Amino acid sequence: MDNKKNEAICRRDDDFAKWYTDICLKAELMDYSSIKGFIIYKPYGYAIWELIQKEYDKKFKQTGHKNVYMPLLIPESLLKKEADHVEGFAPECAVVTKGGLDDLEENLIIRPTSETLFCELYSKTVKSYRDLPKLYNQWCSVVRWEKTTRPFLRGSEFLWQEGHTIHETEKEAREETLKMLKIYSETAKDFLAIPMVTGKKTEKEKFAGALETYTMEALMYDGKVLQSGTSHYFGQGFAKAFDIKFLDKDNKWNYVYQTSWGLSTRLIGAIIMIHGDDNGLILPPKVAPTQVIIIPIRQENEEVLKKANELKEKLLKKNIRVEIDNSDKTPGWKFSEAEMKGIPLRIEIGPKDIENNKCIVFKRNDYTKQEVSLDSNFEQKIKQILYDIHNEMYEKALKNLNDNTFETKDYEELKNILNTKGGFVKVPWCGDLKCEMKIKEEIGATSRCIPNDNTEDKCICCGKKSKHDVYFAKSY
Amino acid sequence: MDNKKNEAICRRDDDFAKWYTDICLKAELMDYSSIKGFIIYKPYGYAIWELIQKEYDKKFKQTGHKNVYMPLLIPESLLKKEADHVEGFAPECAVVTKGGLDDLEENLIIRPTSETLFCELYSKTVKSYRDLPKLYNQWCSVVRWEKTTRPFLRGSEFLWQEGHTIHETEKEAREETLKMLKIYSETAKDFLAIPMVTGKKTEKEKFAGALETYTMEALMYDGKVLQSGTSHYFGQGFAKAFDIKFLDKDNKWNYVYQTSWGLSTRLIGAIIMIHGDDNGLILPPKVAPTQVIIIPIRQENEEVLKKANELKEKLLKKNIRVEIDNSDKTPGWKFSEAEMKGIPLRIEIGPKDIENNKCIVFKRNDYTKQEVSLDSNFEQKIKQILYDIHNEMYEKALKNLNDNTFETKDYEELKNILNTKGGFVKVPWCGDLKCEMKIKEEIGATSRCIPNDNTEDKCICCGKKSKHDVYFAKSY
Repeated sequence: MDNKKNEAICRRDDDFAKWYTDICLKAELMDYSSIKGFIIYKPYGYAIWELIQKEYDKKFKQTGHKNVYMPLLIPESLLKKEADHVEGFAPECAVVTKGGLDDLEENLIIRPTSETLFCELYSKTVKSYRDLPKLYNQWCSVVRWEKTTRPFLRGSEFLWQEGHTIHETEKEAREETLKMLKIYSETAKDFLAIPMVTGKKTEKEKFAGALETYTMEALMYDGKVLQSGTSHYFGQGFAKAFDIKFLDKDNKWNYVYQTSWGLSTRLIGAIIMIHGDDNGLILPPKVAPTQVIIIPIRQENEEVLKKANELKEKLLKKNIRVEIDNSDKTPGWKFSEAEMKGIPLRIEIGPKDIENNKCIVFKRNDYTKQEVSLDSNFEQKIKQILYDIHNEMYEKALKNLNDNTFETKDYEELKNILNTKGGFVKVPWCGDLKCEMKIKEEIGATSRCIPNDNTEDKCICCGKKSKHDVYFAKSY
Repeated sequence: MDNKKNEAICRRDDDFAKWYTDICLKAELMDYSSIKGFIIYKPYGYAIWELIQKEYDKKFKQTGHKNVYMPLLIPESLLKKEADHVEGFAPECAVVTKGGLDDLEENLIIRPTSETLFCELYSKTVKSYRDLPKLYNQWCSVVRWEKTTRPFLRGSEFLWQEGHTIHETEKEAREETLKMLKIYSETAKDFLAIPMVTGKKTEKEKFAGALETYTMEALMYDGKVLQSGTSHYFGQGFAKAFDIKFLDKDNKWNYVYQTSWGLSTRLIGAIIMIHGDDNGLILPPKVAPTQVIIIPIRQENEEVLKKANELKEKLLKKNIRVEIDNSDKTPGWKFSEAEMKGIPLRIEIGPKDIENNKCIVFKRNDYTKQEVSLDSNFEQKIKQILYDIHNEMYEKALKNLNDNTFETKDYEELKNILNTKGGFVKVPWCGDLKCEMKIKEEIGATSRCIPNDNTEDKCICCGKKSKHDVYFAKSY
C-alpha cells in the first residue's frame, strides 16, 4: 500500500498542473469564488497561512519592525507620483469609481502594493535623523487584475506582507534589503523545509520603481521555478517623488533611503509543489496545522479511545498539534484522508498495541512505519521523529535542487537542458537586455537571478565579454 | 503634579470630541490618510488591535471556530440575493467598475460585510447534517461609505472580525448567537476592563437581514453610549435566499439555521473614551503594548542604566511587556509621554533608589506612587500591581456605569436625564416603532437594547401596556 496512488487526484507525472489544483481542492486548502482570480482560503489552507504569518512576523519583530495598517484604497493621483511605479501597476488596477451611490470625484485604486501610501505617511511624519529609521510592515490583501490565475500562485487578490522602511544612509538601507532577503530564505529553510536560490534580479525583472530587486527562487517538482519573495532597494527615487526629507546630523536636508520587501500566500503553492506526491500534500511539521493524527484501530473497544486520548493529552502538553480521528469511517479511509492533507505523522493504536504497550508510527514523507513504545519517553520520541521529518524533507528538496542546477557556457546545451529537464541553469551573460530577451523568446525561459558577477567568460548568447553569471529557468 | 493637565491635548470637560481626536493623534494611535474615513493605523494603535485580535481569536478557537479568508469583492448580483440585506447596505457601497484597464461586465462591491460570500460557499459545500455545524470566522477590513467619520468610531474602512456559522437546528443557532455575545462581553470585562450592557436590539435597530440582533453597549465618559459588538440570529432567511440545504437525520431536506457576529476597531475608541483622562490615554494592562516603562533618573550614571536593564530582563522573563526610555529627553518629558500613551505602570530608578535597593512605581490609572523593593519578590510585586490596575480600572468604569444607569416610567424625566446627565435609561415600552421614533426625534436618543420583557407597566411614550423594558441613550 505504500506509495499507492490516491484515486482522488491525478498523478504528478501525468499532468502536473491538474495534480496541483486537485490537491488544492481535495486537501481542502481553498475553493473558487464566483469572481475569477479571487479564491476562498478554507480553514485548512488559512491555518497554514496563519502559521507562516506567525513565524515571519516573529522574525520581523525580533529585528525591530512594527506592524501598521494602511488604507485599502489609493487615490489615482497618488499612485501616479512615481513614474516607473505607476507604469508597472496601471494595467493591473481595480478601480473604484462610485462610493455611497455617488460617482467619486477622483478614482480610487484598490492597493496593488502600498509604497505610495507609506511614502505619503513618511513625508508627513519624518523631519529629522532622530525620526529614522522607520521600520514598518503590513499584513493585508492586495489586488492585481490578472488574466491567467492559479490558486496561491497567481491571483487577482492575494494575501501578503509588505515591509516598507526608510533610512538615514544608503549603507543602512542596502543592509536592510539584504537582511530581509536573508530572513526570508533562512525561514523558508528552517520552517518550510524549502531550499532557496537567492540573488539579484536583472534590470528587466526588477520591481517597478526599484533600483535593485533581490529575490528568493525555489525549484518545483516539475523543474519550473517559483519566485517566492523579493526585497527591493529604492535608493532615493520615491523619496524625491514624495518629498521625504529630513535634517541630517550636519543640519542639512537630505532625502531618505528606502526599501520594501514582500512575500505572499505563494509560499503555500511552493510547499505543495516541492513536497507533495501522488497521495496528496506533504506538510513540513512546523507549518502543519495538525502535526500528529491519532487513528484508533477497533475504536469500538473502549480501551482504545481511552488510550488514544491519553496519548493526545501527553502530546498536547509538549505543544504538539495533535488530533484524534474517531469518526465512523474505516481506518483505511482515515489513512487516505490524513495522507491527502499531508499530516506529517500518523499514530495507529489498537487493542494489540495497547497490550504490548506500543503504537505504530507512520511517517507521511517516506511512508515508513515503526513501533514506538508508550513508555515515559513517548512524547520525546514523537518530537524527535517530527524533527527528523523536517530535516529529511529539507534534504530531499535540497538534493532535487542540486541535481537540477546546471552550469553551461554553451547556448545549445542551455536550450537542451531547459527543454528536457528544466531546473536552474547558470550561464555567463553580458548584461544586455537583447540577449536576455532572445533566451526568453527562443527557449521560453527567464532570468531568475544574478548570483554573482563574472567578467572572466563570454556571454552565452552574443559571445561578448560577460558581466555576471545569471540563472535561467522556466518559471511560474 | 498629579492630575495636572497635559498641555498637548484639550481638556475632556471642555470639548470631549476634540479631546478624543487629540488623544488619537498625540498618543500616535492613528493618522489621517488623504481619503476621508480611511485612517492609518500607526504602530501603537495597531499593536493594541493585535492584542485585541489575539485574545478574541483565542476565545473563538477554544469554542471550535476556524478562520478563513473570503474574497474582498462581491458581485452586485450576489449582494442582492437577500432583499433586506441589500437594502441595508446598498447606500454605503464602494463600487469597482474597472479591472485591468477594462470596464467590468458586472460591478463588484468591496465587502461591507461578507454574509453573502459565506452563504455562497455554504450552499456549495454543505449537503448533509454530517457537514454541520460550520463555525467560520474571518479577520479583515470592510468598506462602508460613511458621510460623517471619526477615528475608530465610524470609518469608511475599518478592521473587524466577522463570524458566520450554520447549524442543524434553530436551538443550536440561537445558543451560538448568545454564546458569542457572552464571549464578547466577558472578554471586554476581563481583557479591556470594560463593563458592557447586553440585550436584544429592537426591530428598528437590528441588522439588515437578521431575525434578532443582540448587542453589547458601553457607556463613555461623556454619557454617550457606544455599540461595541453585535451577534445576529438569521433563522433560515439567508439559507432560503441562497439555497443552503442539507439532508437531515431523517433523510429530509432542510434549510440551515444561521448566525453572524462581529466586533471591530471600535473597541479602541471605547478604551480611549472610557479609561482616558486629561493627560492622555490610560490602557488596561492586558491590552497595553508596553505594560511597564522604566525611566532612569540620572541615566548618565552607568549604574543606573545597568540596573534599569537588569530590572527589564527580570520582567521580560515573567512575560511582562517592558521598555526602557533611555532617550536624551528629561525625565519629566518622558513621564508626560508615557502618560500620554497610557502605559499602565512606570518605574523610576535613580542612584539613590539603587542605594536603598528600591524603585518608585507610578500607577497611571490613579497617579499613586509607591516604593517597591528590588528584592526577590520584585517581579511578583509588579505583576500584582498590574493585576490591581486592571481591577481598579474595571471597578471605576463599572461605578460610572452604575451611577449613570437610570430607570424611569415618566417621559419628562427620561427627557431630562438624557438631556442633562446622559447615561442609560431603562423604560417600559409597548414595542411600537412610533414610540421609539418619537423618543428619537424629540430627545435625540435611540433604543440601545432590550434587557428583558416587561408586561407589568405602561409604555413611557403612549401609555399602552408595555411589552419590554428598553434602554434608551444618546449614542455614537
